[in-house]
Amino acid sequence: MQLTVKQIAEMIQGTIIGDEAVVIRGISGIKEAKEGDLTFIANRKYLSLLKNTKASAIIVSRDIKNTSNSPLIQVDNPSLAFGRVMSYVGPEEIRFTPGIHPTAIIGENVALGKDVSVQPYAVIEDYAAIGDRCIIGTGVYIGHYTTIESDCLIYPHVIIRERIRIGNHVIIHPCTVIGGDGFGFATVKGVHHKIPQIGTVEIGNDVEIGSSVTIDRARFGRTLIGNGVKIDNLVQIAHNVSIGDNTIVVAQVGISGSTTIGQNVVIAGQAGIIGHVAVGDNVIIGGKAGVTKDIPDNTHVTGFPAREKWEDMRFQAYLRKQPEMIERIKNLEERIEELEEMLREMNGNAENH
Amino acid sequence: MQLTVKQIAEMIQGTIIGDEAVVIRGISGIKEAKEGDLTFIANRKYLSLLKNTKASAIIVSRDIKNTSNSPLIQVDNPSLAFGRVMSYVGPEEIRFTPGIHPTAIIGENVALGKDVSVQPYAVIEDYAAIGDRCIIGTGVYIGHYTTIESDCLIYPHVIIRERIRIGNHVIIHPCTVIGGDGFGFATVKGVHHKIPQIGTVEIGNDVEIGSSVTIDRARFGRTLIGNGVKIDNLVQIAHNVSIGDNTIVVAQVGISGSTTIGQNVVIAGQAGIIGHVAVGDNVIIGGKAGVTKDIPDNTHVTGFPAREKWEDMRFQAYLRKQPEMIERIKNLEERIEELEEMLREMNGNAENH
Amino acid sequence: MQLTVKQIAEMIQGTIIGDEAVVIRGISGIKEAKEGDLTFIANRKYLSLLKNTKASAIIVSRDIKNTSNSPLIQVDNPSLAFGRVMSYVGPEEIRFTPGIHPTAIIGENVALGKDVSVQPYAVIEDYAAIGDRCIIGTGVYIGHYTTIESDCLIYPHVIIRERIRIGNHVIIHPCTVIGGDGFGFATVKGVHHKIPQIGTVEIGNDVEIGSSVTIDRARFGRTLIGNGVKIDNLVQIAHNVSIGDNTIVVAQVGISGSTTIGQNVVIAGQAGIIGHVAVGDNVIIGGKAGVTKDIPDNTHVTGFPAREKWEDMRFQAYLRKQPEMIERIKNLEERIEELEEMLREMNGNAENH
Repeated sequence: MQLTVKQIAEMIQGTIIGDEAVVIRGISGIKEAKEGDLTFIANRKYLSLLKNTKASAIIVSRDIKNTSNSPLIQVDNPSLAFGRVMSYVGPEEIRFTPGIHPTAIIGENVALGKDVSVQPYAVIEDYAAIGDRCIIGTGVYIGHYTTIESDCLIYPHVIIRERIRIGNHVIIHPCTVIGGDGFGFATVKGVHHKIPQIGTVEIGNDVEIGSSVTIDRARFGRTLIGNGVKIDNLVQIAHNVSIGDNTIVVAQVGISGSTTIGQNVVIAGQAGIIGHVAVGDNVIIGGKAGVTKDIPDNTHVTGFPAREKWEDMRFQAYLRKQPEMIERIKNLEERIEELEEMLREMNGNAENH
Repeated sequence: MQLTVKQIAEMIQGTIIGDEAVVIRGISGIKEAKEGDLTFIANRKYLSLLKNTKASAIIVSRDIKNTSNSPLIQVDNPSLAFGRVMSYVGPEEIRFTPGIHPTAIIGENVALGKDVSVQPYAVIEDYAAIGDRCIIGTGVYIGHYTTIESDCLIYPHVIIRERIRIGNHVIIHPCTVIGGDGFGFATVKGVHHKIPQIGTVEIGNDVEIGSSVTIDRARFGRTLIGNGVKIDNLVQIAHNVSIGDNTIVVAQVGISGSTTIGQNVVIAGQAGIIGHVAVGDNVIIGGKAGVTKDIPDNTHVTGFPAREKWEDMRFQAYLRKQPEMIERIKNLEERIEELEEMLREMNGNAENH
Repeated sequence: MQLTVKQIAEMIQGTIIGDEAVVIRGISGIKEAKEGDLTFIANRKYLSLLKNTKASAIIVSRDIKNTSNSPLIQVDNPSLAFGRVMSYVGPEEIRFTPGIHPTAIIGENVALGKDVSVQPYAVIEDYAAIGDRCIIGTGVYIGHYTTIESDCLIYPHVIIRERIRIGNHVIIHPCTVIGGDGFGFATVKGVHHKIPQIGTVEIGNDVEIGSSVTIDRARFGRTLIGNGVKIDNLVQIAHNVSIGDNTIVVAQVGISGSTTIGQNVVIAGQAGIIGHVAVGDNVIIGGKAGVTKDIPDNTHVTGFPAREKWEDMRFQAYLRKQPEMIERIKNLEERIEELEEMLREMNGNAENH
C-alpha cells in the first residue's frame, strides 16, 4: 500500500486539513498507529489521543479541529470512510472455488441459481432453492424446501432446517442454527408433551447473523427477521418472535417466544426479553437489561426490571443515598431523645413549680 | 385441510359450544386468525381477544364461556389439543432416507439397531452402539463406546463424545456438544494445569435438548440428565451437574459444576446457578436469577442473589419507597429544627423569667 | 485398578497419615465414595464429610488433620495430585487414527508437520500450516493462510477462519468458531453498512477453549488470547479484545470490542464487560457482574454496575436495612408529633399563664 493523503481523501470525499502530499503505507487503530499509518476517530472518547498519535493521517468527522501534527481528513462518517479505505488496502479477499464441489450432496429437485458455489461436504436437501451467486460453505446443511435468494454468504457448518425462507444479500456466520424447533411443551401431570412446531423462519434482505446464533422456527406461522437486521454471536431468538427492519441485536441477547421487536431498535449485550411483549420502534435496551413488559416507541430502558434510563439512574442515585439517610436518621433519633429529655425536665419543673 | 368443528372436536375429545357444522380450512395464532381458521387460547392473557377474533373456531379450556361469535371447543389442555390438530393438518413431515448413507463412516465393532438411518458425512467411532429406529443426522459425530438407545433423533452436526450414554426417545438439536471436558484446572504458581475429566454424561429417556447446548462430561462419575428433562438452546451444563426428572431449563441458563437440581424444576432464561449447591424439587427459578446457595423444595426464587419471590418483591417494594423516605427524613429534620428553636426560646424565656 | 495407599502416595509425593497397606480399587467423589475408593478434598467446604466418608483413602492438603477412619495422603495440591492418579487409573485414552484420512480435503500449498492426524471430512484450505503432532478432528474447517503450531488438539467441527495464528499445545473443543467477522457497522440514515473486519486472531501457547465459544477477528490488527488462558463454554469474545496470560474466563461470559483484560484475571460465569475498557492484572470479576469502566490491578469486583466487592457488599447490607429504616422513621414521626403536641399545650398554658 502506498497512497497520498490526497488520493485517500478523494476516495472518501474528504476535506484535508494539513499536508495533502503525506504518504500513507499502512492502517491501524489510533493507539497502535506508527509513522506512515492512516488511522481514524469515530468514538469521541478517543479525541484526546489526537494530539500525540504517531499516525501520519487521521480520518475524523467534519466538526473536528486539528490538535495533531499530522493532516486530518474530515468526512461525514469516519467509520464508514475508514471501512472503504480498508476494503481497498486490506488483505486480498478469500475466493471460494466456484461451482459445486464433487463431495457436496445435492438432493432431488433442488434449484441452483447462476454462479452458485457449494463447498465440500455441504448437503442440500430435496426441493431447496439457492439463488444466484450464493456461496454455501463447507459442511453447511440446508433442509428440504428451504429457499435462499441471491448473493448470500453462508459460512461453514451453518444449519438451516426445512421450509425456511432467506432473502438477498444475507450473511450467516459459522455454526448458526436456523429453524430448530421452538421450545414448547404441554404439561399434563408433570410430564411435558412436545407441541409440534410446524411454522417457519423468514429472514429478510441484507441481514447479517453471527456465529452460534439460534433462531427457532414458529409453532405455526413464522419467526420473522426484518430487512437490514444485524445479529451478533450467541443470540437466542425463540419461536414466533418478530424483529423489525434495521434492528441491532448484540451478543448473548435472548428474546423469548412471541415477542415483537420494532424497527431500528438496539438491544445491547446479554439483555433478555420475556415472551409475549411488544418493544416499540427506535427503542434502546441497555446491556444486561431484563425487559418484563411492553416498551413504547423511542424509549431508552436499562436495568432489571427494565425501566426508562433516567428513571433507573434516579432510582440508583436514591439508593446510593442510603448510608447518608441512615446517618441522618441516627442524628434525628439523638436530637429527639434530647428534646424528649428536656421536655420531661421542663414538665418536672413545671409540676414542681 | 377441510374439517368441520365436529370432526375436530372428536379428534381432541372436546365439547362444542356453538355451531358444529362450521368448516375449518387452516390454523393460526389468535391475533393473525382469519375466517376459516382454527385457533386456541392457552394463556389467559389473551382471553380478551376472544370477542373480536376472526377465527372460525377457538379451542379453549373447559371453564371458558363464549364471548366470541364463533364456536368454541372446550378441552382439558388447549395447548396439547391444538398440538394434536397441528400434527394432523400441518405440513407433511420430513422423512430422512432410511439406511446408512454411503458417505457415513462407521467404525469397527459398532452395533447398529434395526431401521437406523445414518445421514451423509456422519461419523460413528469404534464400539459405539445405536438403538433401533434412531436417526443420526448429517455430519453428526458419535465418539468411541457411546451408546444411544432406540428411537432417538439426533439433528445435523451434533457432537457426542466418547463413553456417553443416551436413553430412548431423545431429541438433540443441531450443534449441541455432549461430553466436552469439564472446566477444571489446578493452579500452581499462576499456571493452570488441566485436571483430567475421565467421567461421562448420562442422559435419560424422553429428553429434548436444544441447539448449541453444551453439557460437559464429569471429572469422574457422571453428569446426569434425568428422564423427561427439556433443555432449550444455548444452555451450559458443567461437569458433575445432576438434573432430576422432568425439569425444564430455558435458553441461556448456566449451571456450574457439581450442582444438583431436583425434579420438576423450572429454570427460566438466563438464570445462573453457582457450583456445589442443591436445588430442591418443584423449585421455580426466575429469569436472570443468580442462585448462590441451596434452595429448598417447592420454593419460587427470583433476583440476584436469588431469594424467595415474595421476599424479593417485598424487598424491591421497600427500595422503591426510598424517594418517599428521603422526603420524610427532610420533613422530620425541619420539624425538629423548629422544635429545638422553640425550646431554646422557651428556655431563654424561662431563664429571663 | 489395584494399588496400595503407599504406591499412590509415592506417585504424588504424599505423606501418609494412617495405614499405608490399604488397597485402593477405584476412585470417586467424596460423597459417592464406597469402600475401596480413593477420593480427595480440594474445597474446604467438604472437610466435614471427612469423618463419615466410606472412602478407603483421602487425598488432602498438608494442613489437614485426620478426622476419618481411613488413611489420609497429604499433598501440596489435592486437585492436581488426584488428577495425576486419575490419568494413571482412568479409562484408556481415545487414540485417533494417525495420518490423513482419505476423505480429508487438504488444499494447495498446505504445510503439514510430522505425525499430524487429520480426521474424516476435515477441510484445510490453501496455504494453511499445521504443526507436528496436531490432531485435526472430524469435520474441522481451517481457513486459508491459518497457522497452527505443534501438539494442538482441535476437536470435531471447530471452525477456524482464514489468517488466524494459533500457538503450541492448544486445545479447542467442538463447535467453537475462531475468526468470525467482528460486529461492526456504520449507520447512515438508519441503514447499517458493514465495516470490513480485516484483522486476525492470535492465540498463544497452552490455551484451552471450550465448546461453542465465539472469538471474533479484529477490525484491523488482532484479537489476542495470551499464553495459558483457559476459556469455558459459550463465551463471546468480540473484535480487538486482548486477554493477558493465564487468565480464566468462565462459561457464558461476554467481552465487548476493544476491551483489554490483564494477566491472571478470573472472570466468573455470565459476567459481561463493555467495550473499550481496561481490566488490570489479578482482577477477579464476580459471576453475573457487569463491568462498565476500567478496573485497576488486584481488585475484586461484583455486581452491576461492578464495584469493589467490599463496597458492593456494604452497599447491599445498607439496602437490606431499608425495612428497619422505615420503621425508625415512622417511630420518629410519632415521637415528634407527640413533642409538637406537648409544646403546643405548654405554649397554650404559657399564654394562659
